[in-house]
Amino acid sequence: MSTQKINIAVIGASGYTGADLVRLAMRHPNIEIKALVAKTHAGKPMATVFPHLGGHGLPDLVDVDAVDWDGIDAVFCGLPHGTAHAIISKLPSKIKIIDMSADFRLRDRDTYEQWYGLKHSAPELLNRAVYGLSEHYRDDISSASLVACPGCYPTAVLMALLPVVKAGVIDVDDLIIDAKSGVTGAGRAPKLGTLFSETGEGLSPYAIAGHRHAPEIEQEVSKLAGRDITVNFTPHLIPMSRGELVTCYAKLTKDHVIADVRQALQEAYEDRPFVRLLEGGVIPATQHVRGSNYCLIGVFADRIKNRVIIISTIDNLVKGSAGQALQNFNLMFDLAETAGLEQLPLFP
Amino acid sequence: MSTQKINIAVIGASGYTGADLVRLAMRHPNIEIKALVAKTHAGKPMATVFPHLGGHGLPDLVDVDAVDWDGIDAVFCGLPHGTAHAIISKLPSKIKIIDMSADFRLRDRDTYEQWYGLKHSAPELLNRAVYGLSEHYRDDISSASLVACPGCYPTAVLMALLPVVKAGVIDVDDLIIDAKSGVTGAGRAPKLGTLFSETGEGLSPYAIAGHRHAPEIEQEVSKLAGRDITVNFTPHLIPMSRGELVTCYAKLTKDHVIADVRQALQEAYEDRPFVRLLEGGVIPATQHVRGSNYCLIGVFADRIKNRVIIISTIDNLVKGSAGQALQNFNLMFDLAETAGLEQLPLFP
Amino acid sequence: MSTQKINIAVIGASGYTGADLVRLAMRHPNIEIKALVAKTHAGKPMATVFPHLGGHGLPDLVDVDAVDWDGIDAVFCGLPHGTAHAIISKLPSKIKIIDMSADFRLRDRDTYEQWYGLKHSAPELLNRAVYGLSEHYRDDISSASLVACPGCYPTAVLMALLPVVKAGVIDVDDLIIDAKSGVTGAGRAPKLGTLFSETGEGLSPYAIAGHRHAPEIEQEVSKLAGRDITVNFTPHLIPMSRGELVTCYAKLTKDHVIADVRQALQEAYEDRPFVRLLEGGVIPATQHVRGSNYCLIGVFADRIKNRVIIISTIDNLVKGSAGQALQNFNLMFDLAETAGLEQLPLFP
Amino acid sequence: MSTQKINIAVIGASGYTGADLVRLAMRHPNIEIKALVAKTHAGKPMATVFPHLGGHGLPDLVDVDAVDWDGIDAVFCGLPHGTAHAIISKLPSKIKIIDMSADFRLRDRDTYEQWYGLKHSAPELLNRAVYGLSEHYRDDISSASLVACPGCYPTAVLMALLPVVKAGVIDVDDLIIDAKSGVTGAGRAPKLGTLFSETGEGLSPYAIAGHRHAPEIEQEVSKLAGRDITVNFTPHLIPMSRGELVTCYAKLTKDHVIADVRQALQEAYEDRPFVRLLEGGVIPATQHVRGSNYCLIGVFADRIKNRVIIISTIDNLVKGSAGQALQNFNLMFDLAETAGLEQLPLFP
Repeated sequence: MSTQKINIAVIGASGYTGADLVRLAMRHPNIEIKALVAKTHAGKPMATVFPHLGGHGLPDLVDVDAVDWDGIDAVFCGLPHGTAHAIISKLPSKIKIIDMSADFRLRDRDTYEQWYGLKHSAPELLNRAVYGLSEHYRDDISSASLVACPGCYPTAVLMALLPVVKAGVIDVDDLIIDAKSGVTGAGRAPKLGTLFSETGEGLSPYAIAGHRHAPEIEQEVSKLAGRDITVNFTPHLIPMSRGELVTCYAKLTKDHVIADVRQALQEAYEDRPFVRLLEGGVIPATQHVRGSNYCLIGVFADRIKNRVIIISTIDNLVKGSAGQALQNFNLMFDLAETAGLEQLPLFP
Repeated sequence: MSTQKINIAVIGASGYTGADLVRLAMRHPNIEIKALVAKTHAGKPMATVFPHLGGHGLPDLVDVDAVDWDGIDAVFCGLPHGTAHAIISKLPSKIKIIDMSADFRLRDRDTYEQWYGLKHSAPELLNRAVYGLSEHYRDDISSASLVACPGCYPTAVLMALLPVVKAGVIDVDDLIIDAKSGVTGAGRAPKLGTLFSETGEGLSPYAIAGHRHAPEIEQEVSKLAGRDITVNFTPHLIPMSRGELVTCYAKLTKDHVIADVRQALQEAYEDRPFVRLLEGGVIPATQHVRGSNYCLIGVFADRIKNRVIIISTIDNLVKGSAGQALQNFNLMFDLAETAGLEQLPLFP
Repeated sequence: MSTQKINIAVIGASGYTGADLVRLAMRHPNIEIKALVAKTHAGKPMATVFPHLGGHGLPDLVDVDAVDWDGIDAVFCGLPHGTAHAIISKLPSKIKIIDMSADFRLRDRDTYEQWYGLKHSAPELLNRAVYGLSEHYRDDISSASLVACPGCYPTAVLMALLPVVKAGVIDVDDLIIDAKSGVTGAGRAPKLGTLFSETGEGLSPYAIAGHRHAPEIEQEVSKLAGRDITVNFTPHLIPMSRGELVTCYAKLTKDHVIADVRQALQEAYEDRPFVRLLEGGVIPATQHVRGSNYCLIGVFADRIKNRVIIISTIDNLVKGSAGQALQNFNLMFDLAETAGLEQLPLFP
Repeated sequence: MSTQKINIAVIGASGYTGADLVRLAMRHPNIEIKALVAKTHAGKPMATVFPHLGGHGLPDLVDVDAVDWDGIDAVFCGLPHGTAHAIISKLPSKIKIIDMSADFRLRDRDTYEQWYGLKHSAPELLNRAVYGLSEHYRDDISSASLVACPGCYPTAVLMALLPVVKAGVIDVDDLIIDAKSGVTGAGRAPKLGTLFSETGEGLSPYAIAGHRHAPEIEQEVSKLAGRDITVNFTPHLIPMSRGELVTCYAKLTKDHVIADVRQALQEAYEDRPFVRLLEGGVIPATQHVRGSNYCLIGVFADRIKNRVIIISTIDNLVKGSAGQALQNFNLMFDLAETAGLEQLPLFP
């Protein structure tokens, strides 16, 4: 086990993804947390903002201007979209950046500006940014200086679909993705729609045909398909805090069968420590990945002939954000891919 | 308001659907509850089994053999499938029966026996039974002596799809139905899979491509289509007690547009007191029907061209079972369709 | 059944208590809802703010200045504390007022100003106001023009304690009240502490020794005791939307036994339609009052000699607010006490 | 860090405490899991019973008779009470035993037999057994061959009370303990009372004045007090899976003040890695210990003079069971007390 110590700063440490990154980084054998950055909460102890992280001598939250960047080797950025690019573009270039925001995920600036409704202030960085779906862009990530971690939904979806699309086994013009997420996906800023009393004991679809993760999924599928693909992507808010599960409905291409789907997935993930392709008949559930970096995938025959159902589940804050960020960090610094990510799922 | 009193018995009063029927019947202006039947709990006060119904002078639970059928006008049956047909076939023929079990839903005996894995002991009653989807089979129900109330999922699905299928607006060979239900759908018998610790803070698909409500949906869609249709039907267990929401993905047939879908639904339900077709952009949520007999339906354009998303939500124990049973009872006894069903949704 | 129609306005209709009042009033046989008042949401249809109340022809939300008070017989006020007294003091005096805010609960202006941290702008109304604990101040309420409905916690606590304190059976200097509430008790304004992700799957005490409902409880207990009493009152936030349960620990006074506690409660409530004193050994639970105006009370011997445990449960939005308000309205207008409040608890 | 490997077997691996022990043991640097024992599920892969633990090469579940005890150094036993003593008494005496059942917690055989309603079949082992409240019986545990891990509630309660009782700061004849637990505390065997539909969105007291953890708390308090003490202990079931919080109400003894309570706790726990005495005003919540071995304690002045409120929270499956078992194992094998227990709380 490497004992090298890498100094990190976490920007946006007062949000859920920031806090989960800190939780994981505190136990990473090669990480030293040097600075925790937050705007509104600058000046407060981390334990005031996140009591579960108290008692471990974390540095207090500071404003971004108060950080001494000289001693920092890597920055994790958990800011909301639209605020990340301005800050990242000002960081010293020797610092490796793992961005968990949406600001560098979309390769196409126009698409970004249209979906996020704002100008991209660091378009030159877009070219440098590598899309951080760890299992699929491993080599690019290893040599990157700026990694844009995928959205939580795109992670779950692309883990299920990319190998199958690549193998030409399913029809990319008919992808129906019914997605379900826990409430942490909506962040920590108080909003009516994420109050306990509004979401508890209930279930609602949202952002139908208009969720910002749709163009991100389409970007990656289109890249493999070699042409512009439009997918159905319909998210639903589930009364749980953590966890995401996507149910993907696809048509098999001519002469392909369910076994081909399984084989494509098996080949893609056989040496990947965080992906488990479940045996036939075993159904993924969010409970079985909670708090961990694992992704579980199941393949099922549809009742309609020549159709397949692929189901994938992750913890949206871990594999869907902070965990995958740490996985990318490990690749970038040539550490064991699983370093700091060995926590098993917490069930129940 | 009619003041006629109709004497009823409830068989299977110790299950969730039985109890919800009792809850509603207790406040129905024309109902007198004469007998509550349960097997294991026979001899106990209803309040021992369901404390929320205590203090109102309900009759004690009794064994089915202890009921004096002479004074009974109607029977509601909330037994598990496979036990209902034997008991129903022995009831005096003058008694009108509203069955909430699965025993008389499938018109085809072979289909029933194959899906439920048991012999149907009252096949002669199958012909008498009317499928009790109140809004769609109103006339048949009014003159029926035996009504088979639809399953909870089929109710939600068929309310969304039947008018559209009938209007020829969508392609019946490509229906993807992603369904989500609260845990009460699994009944009150203790099972590992419905423990709080197993289902709380989590989400799991189940019975993929093999749920018994699939053939029921197919029966009704096939009837309209004039040929055997197979649909995708994929249920998911959601950490909430009540509520069901189905997200239906369909392809528009040639020359049809989203507006045609809305129009078909509007025409079908314009005078129906329990159905609300939501305005464009308003999204149904289970919270907004909880505890009530309402069904909310929303229609949305898909991102994929020529595709539509139809979403429907009900309370699985009310419109999905006991409420619809009472609605059918009202039709059978020529009462106001809304009698005893005027409770508004309980939100939050 | 009286068919008299009474015209009401609801001020603060965009909060949870306002909405629950509307839900109940819509089905009250003697109520005509003439105006729904809200500030921020003025101009919107009620269904935009509360989709579960859509489809029933409710008036749109309006600003308080837009109401024609001439036709209004009664006003229900569900405003936050501090805003109610200013508005109420300007209403025409012929209008009967049922206030669900905290502004007129405390008889002592200094106590109010100290606990709520603001000046009381309508002290002259304090004398007119009757404390609306329906079962205990029935006669006063019947002839009142302004009723201050008790807080949710005080309702649950006082229903359990007042008869026992009055009978002199317990020691008022040693009252420990461990209180538990669902999240709706904190209102609908978005706050970090009531987000699903913060409160779900967790439990926390709050406002220890400093909750504003403590002086309200003490006011009523002191009145009976004839001297100033201080009680322990420790609230806990529970991951559920509705429901409140208080566990009261008390010392029996000399020569009194558990049976005396039961008898005091039995005598106090024997003809009260909404109170159920449970048999020995039967334990109250919030599930069994959900959505209803009932209050369940249980009495238990402590393991410590000469101590008793009294447990009381209500739905905080119904008996703890809107339901009790309606019950008071019924008393004020000489209607059946249960009119509009006959909904049975919704379980599960 | 020690690299010594200790071979363990887990008996009762199919329950929640067994599974949580396995989860923790899998990541313990000095543990090798040699056998997983379960009765009903013998023969199955662990991943069939607990899918979240799949993919890590765990041994299959086996019957107790199939274990080769020769290679086993330590046994963790997570059986239900009444079944543990028979099995433990037959294990080779060189094996160190950490028992998570209730069978060896009560020193007095009569008390055990009275509360658990069965004969104790291994009374000779009772003398050997050490009560495994790690922070309080460290030396005894270090040299023990059989450790009886405390119940979850007693752990939370005694962590809060023992130092204070020892310091003579509170009156032991007037201890009111209002306890709240998540549903996993009731185990994994399917029961009506722990179904999601019964416990969700609700809260209920249970086992009032009759819970088996009461005599266990009394045993330890009595030992310090030097005479038989009876405490109030009132548990409540909360709609969450994990977590326990106890609110202890006590009277200060003459001449003592709140600061003395804090000081007693501070001194008791200043070097204890898993206990955090929170600063004044900071309130413990179960969310902040979830999944971890931490215990948070807060001290508060009561509104009633000379009374104090002490609140303690733990994860019932970790510090309340499997975590404390592992902590005791570490002490018994002279490993770092925190080995394998360094996971931080999972929030949200």
